[in-house]
Amino acid sequence: ARNFIVTLSCTDQPGIVYAVSGALLQAGCNITESQQFESPETGTFFMRVAVATEATQAEVWGSLEPVAQAFGMQLDVFDAERPARTLIMCSKEGHALNDLLFQQRAGMLSIEVPLIVSNHADLRPMAEFYGVPFVHLPVTKDNKADAEARLLELVTEHQIDVVVLARYMQILSNDLCRELNGRAINIHHSFLPSFKGAKPYHQAHARGVKLIGATAHYVTTDLDEGPIIEQEVIRVNHAQTPQQFVALGRDVEGRTLATAVQWHAQHRVLLDGTRTVVFN
Amino acid sequence: ARNFIVTLSCTDQPGIVYAVSGALLQAGCNITESQQFESPETGTFFMRVAVATEATQAEVWGSLEPVAQAFGMQLDVFDAERPARTLIMCSKEGHALNDLLFQQRAGMLSIEVPLIVSNHADLRPMAEFYGVPFVHLPVTKDNKADAEARLLELVTEHQIDVVVLARYMQILSNDLCRELNGRAINIHHSFLPSFKGAKPYHQAHARGVKLIGATAHYVTTDLDEGPIIEQEVIRVNHAQTPQQFVALGRDVEGRTLATAVQWHAQHRVLLDGTRTVVFN
Amino acid sequence: ARNFIVTLSCTDQPGIVYAVSGALLQAGCNITESQQFESPETGTFFMRVAVATEATQAEVWGSLEPVAQAFGMQLDVFDAERPARTLIMCSKEGHALNDLLFQQRAGMLSIEVPLIVSNHADLRPMAEFYGVPFVHLPVTKDNKADAEARLLELVTEHQIDVVVLARYMQILSNDLCRELNGRAINIHHSFLPSFKGAKPYHQAHARGVKLIGATAHYVTTDLDEGPIIEQEVIRVNHAQTPQQFVALGRDVEGRTLATAVQWHAQHRVLLDGTRTVVFN
Amino acid sequence: ARNFIVTLSCTDQPGIVYAVSGALLQAGCNITESQQFESPETGTFFMRVAVATEATQAEVWGSLEPVAQAFGMQLDVFDAERPARTLIMCSKEGHALNDLLFQQRAGMLSIEVPLIVSNHADLRPMAEFYGVPFVHLPVTKDNKADAEARLLELVTEHQIDVVVLARYMQILSNDLCRELNGRAINIHHSFLPSFKGAKPYHQAHARGVKLIGATAHYVTTDLDEGPIIEQEVIRVNHAQTPQQFVALGRDVEGRTLATAVQWHAQHRVLLDGTRTVVFN
Repeated sequence: ARNFIVTLSCTDQPGIVYAVSGALLQAGCNITESQQFESPETGTFFMRVAVATEATQAEVWGSLEPVAQAFGMQLDVFDAERPARTLIMCSKEGHALNDLLFQQRAGMLSIEVPLIVSNHADLRPMAEFYGVPFVHLPVTKDNKADAEARLLELVTEHQIDVVVLARYMQILSNDLCRELNGRAINIHHSFLPSFKGAKPYHQAHARGVKLIGATAHYVTTDLDEGPIIEQEVIRVNHAQTPQQFVALGRDVEGRTLATAVQWHAQHRVLLDGTRTVVFN
Repeated sequence: ARNFIVTLSCTDQPGIVYAVSGALLQAGCNITESQQFESPETGTFFMRVAVATEATQAEVWGSLEPVAQAFGMQLDVFDAERPARTLIMCSKEGHALNDLLFQQRAGMLSIEVPLIVSNHADLRPMAEFYGVPFVHLPVTKDNKADAEARLLELVTEHQIDVVVLARYMQILSNDLCRELNGRAINIHHSFLPSFKGAKPYHQAHARGVKLIGATAHYVTTDLDEGPIIEQEVIRVNHAQTPQQFVALGRDVEGRTLATAVQWHAQHRVLLDGTRTVVFN
Repeated sequence: ARNFIVTLSCTDQPGIVYAVSGALLQAGCNITESQQFESPETGTFFMRVAVATEATQAEVWGSLEPVAQAFGMQLDVFDAERPARTLIMCSKEGHALNDLLFQQRAGMLSIEVPLIVSNHADLRPMAEFYGVPFVHLPVTKDNKADAEARLLELVTEHQIDVVVLARYMQILSNDLCRELNGRAINIHHSFLPSFKGAKPYHQAHARGVKLIGATAHYVTTDLDEGPIIEQEVIRVNHAQTPQQFVALGRDVEGRTLATAVQWHAQHRVLLDGTRTVVFN
Repeated sequence: ARNFIVTLSCTDQPGIVYAVSGALLQAGCNITESQQFESPETGTFFMRVAVATEATQAEVWGSLEPVAQAFGMQLDVFDAERPARTLIMCSKEGHALNDLLFQQRAGMLSIEVPLIVSNHADLRPMAEFYGVPFVHLPVTKDNKADAEARLLELVTEHQIDVVVLARYMQILSNDLCRELNGRAINIHHSFLPSFKGAKPYHQAHARGVKLIGATAHYVTTDLDEGPIIEQEVIRVNHAQTPQQFVALGRDVEGRTLATAVQWHAQHRVLLDGTRTVVFN
């Protein structure tokens, strides 16, 4: 039997589940997992269904397509066994990259990593250890447009499903953000209260916060403000130095990003305006 | 519009969701929340659906009944607005009782509390403050059978949906456990590793554990071993005394029990053999 | 034997611990708990020592005073058995008040509550249940100065050690903030990222945050920006409504505030500029 | 200036802190961090002091030695800059090893790793990537005594401070446990309630637990029952498979072990009978 993931969204209205489950039944699908949500804010209905069937992906799609048209659905049918082709971008700090690569190799993430792209060469040895091709793509003020164009070529060439910014310390241009809309994930530190500007962990330390955290979100043109996928925090205290805040922050960043990537790779995250629906 | 909660379980087989959603559509139900799970261990399919409709409870039931018969379902249709009628049992310690009563009054729990039953009179003033009738039902070795019979009368008389043991320090007889099967919730302390016998917090302290916790579970004849609804832990350290362990333990017990009661009251907990399916 | 808590701070320099422990030895004190911290940022040394002794509070103080003068210390000697006299201020929402009063009565907080002051009468029944005098002190634009003057009279009259704002929905004047500096604790909601303006839980919901939290801090003239004592968070998801965010937020607010009050009452919190040192 | 860590324990009695701080003052030591604890259960006093001084390690030791003799102390003076020489033992699963090696290289752990010893060859490539010598030391029923003798030779030869069992799947002999007493750390899974026998994650799954966890402890002859250094848990639910429990368990095991190793390496863990005092 084959396993597929069906995700769909449309304006909420009666009969959606009946129509979808009927089409799936017709394609010989046994539903193994199903979640749905109707957003009171946007009036949108979201659904994720995992199915096992003897039918092919095209047959499942063919059975669902009339329903999608009748209800005006955004529909997707994914092969559940196919790992998400993930391009990881990084700079000099390897903690988030290491978490992703190790967990991928240990079978803990539903991804494969055909390529790592970095604006620095520092992490090439780590890429080599894990046997992942590493492209050094330096970015300067002058070549930024070219570098981003090259990145998009690599995304196409390697049939990339998702771009993960694992502490990639370059701001993407608005054009690139739009191009990668819904398929690029970033991680950034977060605090209560939040801090603007340089050295945020030092600012948080100076403010005497008791929790520091990380937020994984989709990349949008609104820097660090895209739809949130996952957040985690860790406890800190007065006796810890700003350097220890940074180290603890790295740890929680790595874990939070890996979680977000896994949910995305399993097609558990759907966009509801500026919010995410996470079927985890 | 009225709101209902439909819960059902049956042997997993193709067509369940199609049949159920069809019957709901027929009764003019709009699905506002739906969760399902198929248990690989027992081969049982579980579903919880929240609906909004102009139809009556009887009409929804009538529409679903043929489906229930065709698939051999355990089916329930609950009025979502009706709070669970909850009888709380307690002894001398009031922390868990207070958490439940305060949260109920603050509108944080989907329950009403027509009755508190205790084998001691100590907590009568708290019951009076919250305006809840309090029955003092002492239990001795000699009157245990009579006391339990009286309790069952009260359960019937007050149309109780769920009995909550909020640190009730009497062991229920096997007969009573069976009588209340699936509708009595207990809270007990829990530790890594676990400890048998008296003064468990003192044993945990002597062992130097770093986490203490609480487990809320359905009452079965197997003492403290019924299906687990919820568990929580809290961090402790070497400098804390056994008395502080007890105080912290009370706090986590109260919170864990309140969470479990809320999930039960919202019909989010279904039994899968000795495990629970929690649609939260 | 009597138990005292000694707290002190001064510019960091060699010999402090030697001098303090010598003075305590001279007063027949056995040290039962001791913590210290030297702040790299401010160069200040902080110490909290719990002692058991046959000496009186005056004798302990007398033995330490020459040391305090020699090192230019801010010194305090507290009776460890004496609960902090706590004035609780509230408005209409009772969750934080209830947490404090119940935990106080259950012996979980080192405080006594001689007085509750509120700008609304709603919570009088709760005060009465716990047997705490309740002063209804309405605040309008016109009488604000008078009301604050009356509050300060009550603080003096009842020998209040600490004022706790348990969801008291009035902004204190700058003068009052300064008057209560270091002895008034507030609780407010907090989020990643933070939100300004009205209905913060609704804003957080609209933003799709995955964690909401609470921050307990000392009151300063800088609204919600005083030195942080404690922070906690709780997980939320896309399916929860803004109303559920509010209810969960209340719960975490109550717990966080109670923790902060307990640490303050046990003289575990010292001020290091805009940060706190928490010897917990 | 040099930095040292002083740890000491002795029967609790008046004057310890005064004597120790006097000896440190005499050696020109500025105390930068100090923690103490008196165990009510065993009547033992524990202290950890971090100091900065121009004196040598021998001079600090010389100044403290008369005090240690007078009070019957167990005394140690460590160079705070010297990383703990750590021998990691592993078998086939690399998650805990990877966490330790990556964090070590990233500067997040106060250890160096001169050697990895494994009864299987599987993890040699990971050792090579991190540039750590790898000794394949197979263990069979027949050669166990020889293999353990060889291990002890390696411990001596490489001047090992601490042996870390990073999912090393061999039970150490009682003799080896005693030989490594207080300097060998193990990680094992833990659950509420606990489970004996094979496949514990599968047992926990069958029981329907909602939390799974890990316990890092010193190795003693009492299997998995040595003094606990650190414990952590992670939330699980009914929809997760036993395989997912295992994956999540690995993650929490790796983090818990790394934390315990760091605290040990910084001389923050002292033994109080079967409990630990953790000055973190």
